[in-house]
Amino acid sequence: MLEDKEQQRTPLSEIGEFGLIHRIKDSVQLKNESSIKGIGDDAAVLSFEGEKTVLSTDMLTEGVHFNLGYVPLQHLGYKAVVTNLSDICAMNAIPSQILVSIAVSDRFPVEAIDELYSGMLIACQKYKVDLVGGDTTSSQSGLVISITAIGHQKKEEIVYRNGVKENDLLVVSGDLGAAYFGLQILERENEVWKANPAVQPDLSPYNYLIERQLKPEARLDIVKLLKELDVKPTAMIDISDGLASETLHLSEESNVGFVVYEEKIPMDQQVISAGEEFDVNASIAALNGGEDYELLFTIPLEDHEKIKANPHLTVIGHATAKSEGCNLVSRGFQTKVPLTSQGWDSFQKYKQEVIKAKKESNSEEE
Amino acid sequence: MLEDKEQQRTPLSEIGEFGLIHRIKDSVQLKNESSIKGIGDDAAVLSFEGEKTVLSTDMLTEGVHFNLGYVPLQHLGYKAVVTNLSDICAMNAIPSQILVSIAVSDRFPVEAIDELYSGMLIACQKYKVDLVGGDTTSSQSGLVISITAIGHQKKEEIVYRNGVKENDLLVVSGDLGAAYFGLQILERENEVWKANPAVQPDLSPYNYLIERQLKPEARLDIVKLLKELDVKPTAMIDISDGLASETLHLSEESNVGFVVYEEKIPMDQQVISAGEEFDVNASIAALNGGEDYELLFTIPLEDHEKIKANPHLTVIGHATAKSEGCNLVSRGFQTKVPLTSQGWDSFQKYKQEVIKAKKESNSEEE
Repeated sequence: MLEDKEQQRTPLSEIGEFGLIHRIKDSVQLKNESSIKGIGDDAAVLSFEGEKTVLSTDMLTEGVHFNLGYVPLQHLGYKAVVTNLSDICAMNAIPSQILVSIAVSDRFPVEAIDELYSGMLIACQKYKVDLVGGDTTSSQSGLVISITAIGHQKKEEIVYRNGVKENDLLVVSGDLGAAYFGLQILERENEVWKANPAVQPDLSPYNYLIERQLKPEARLDIVKLLKELDVKPTAMIDISDGLASETLHLSEESNVGFVVYEEKIPMDQQVISAGEEFDVNASIAALNGGEDYELLFTIPLEDHEKIKANPHLTVIGHATAKSEGCNLVSRGFQTKVPLTSQGWDSFQKYKQEVIKAKKESNSEEE
Repeated sequence: MLEDKEQQRTPLSEIGEFGLIHRIKDSVQLKNESSIKGIGDDAAVLSFEGEKTVLSTDMLTEGVHFNLGYVPLQHLGYKAVVTNLSDICAMNAIPSQILVSIAVSDRFPVEAIDELYSGMLIACQKYKVDLVGGDTTSSQSGLVISITAIGHQKKEEIVYRNGVKENDLLVVSGDLGAAYFGLQILERENEVWKANPAVQPDLSPYNYLIERQLKPEARLDIVKLLKELDVKPTAMIDISDGLASETLHLSEESNVGFVVYEEKIPMDQQVISAGEEFDVNASIAALNGGEDYELLFTIPLEDHEKIKANPHLTVIGHATAKSEGCNLVSRGFQTKVPLTSQGWDSFQKYKQEVIKAKKESNSEEE
């Protein structure tokens, strides 16, 4: 549907692995001082004087993490890089290099690989990151992408998951739930298109949702903003699996509980509308949808003044004693429901039970 | 054939991705001072005070790089780590950490993944390397392994591919060609076994060859030996694709030519025997077989004294002017043939032509 019509299809076998490596090498220019040696030797060499090296890696497989039926290769390349940079940002570190490995089957022509790398290089340019190495190989089936992101930061500036203190505020950047609905829309329109390729869908009411799914950003700007605001989070994580799952990770690693207020969770108007259209509670998309790549972090209560006017940051709860567990205070009813990363069912069911109980209690009162 | 009979088969879905990560995390203990934070945060944090960070990555895909019909998972894990460490050694650096990402399909039970990681951890223990992070994900088809190896070295000790000077000696560690014949034997015996599973092959005449294929080692000992001998190579590369291909890489990057003497190429007696058995010139296995993971390096002529008595090191040629190209002086006939990484055919054909020409010239002389 969104895939480009390839004008030219050069078989990969025509240029071979070394040809492909040369092609990638030629399209890359090292820009960071810390990149001493890039593609073209047995290993890359990096220099982080006086700073720690921060590393993260992710693997994406076709049919599991992406569907080339509706994800353009250039977007896929961009997203694959950005999601890795997001992990470096979640350490409060500055991403500076990536290593990219891909396995491709014969069905991908050279032009498709070019498109994939062009998306990666656009992300590299935007985030001032150098592509310093990797591997290109064959796969007997689909496309596999493995990216290692490298960053750096002073020891005292690095933020782990384990520093939350009781009463710290829980803060999230941007808004949540959009990437989930973006995926629902792309999947739905792909089904419509498969049934009738002549139909040209009008996706404009969903542009924000689709952009958040296809072209997410790493919140390096938030890392820089926090430094400007002179706020060092006590703990930080990026939201890849969903707000609920990440809150539970912070809870587990920091040995604290959390209260999250459903009504505080920042959501775009398109998320609310899509929730109604798909008959899915929008909060659940925010809690369990994932792929938002926003930063979730905690700050000491006394730093509240420094962030409270900022439109990019929302306080959504606070840390409690571990014994109190992790709970969501639901909108309207103001009742506590245990926060779980078990997915949708339990929360939906709970909501229905609460509504039922409220109705019964109301009718009893009447 | 060599695969273990699994006693227990726990479906991966039973423990889930987080269960698998916990399982891996629990089996890992960080031992290096440079490993500040390992598995369990958004990224790993490493510290290389006063040294450069050296990084290399490789991707292995089932059916392309390994065949689980005759490669036990524990050996596969070991080899996957070692081949990456070999790249770090080829920079004259000390490997210290790895990141491991795997994509697996449903057909792999938890016990199979345990076996794979146990092989990786044996390699980690042997080479004093910490497993500090990675990713575990699903694949719609086979097994994919992507490993990033990290090492460190002082700036002035790092050795690149581009430092060869004319008249430098070309030196190789260990012996060559065995891994190639190991693969031929495993493939042959696998075919025999598929035709008749009752046949138990006697592989003892090939034990060295099979070990070199299934369980290669990274020559970290050579990196340390060179330091002891006070020899700093002018350039270095590891032999993954074959002596010919790697010599051409050094030539290209350093802008020199090379002369390699066929009769100097170190080969084990089992390689010579296997060459006869398979009717393949053993030198060609050494030149183009690959997967030997020995180090190929150049040293100044004046350092010859320091290495010449060492049984682990063999001088096989020297660097020349770029204009002379890369040539092999063939055994016996002492004629020069251009070194190519184009595989077997051209060299075999050339040999036959030389033999024919020699015979004709001899008969003319008679």
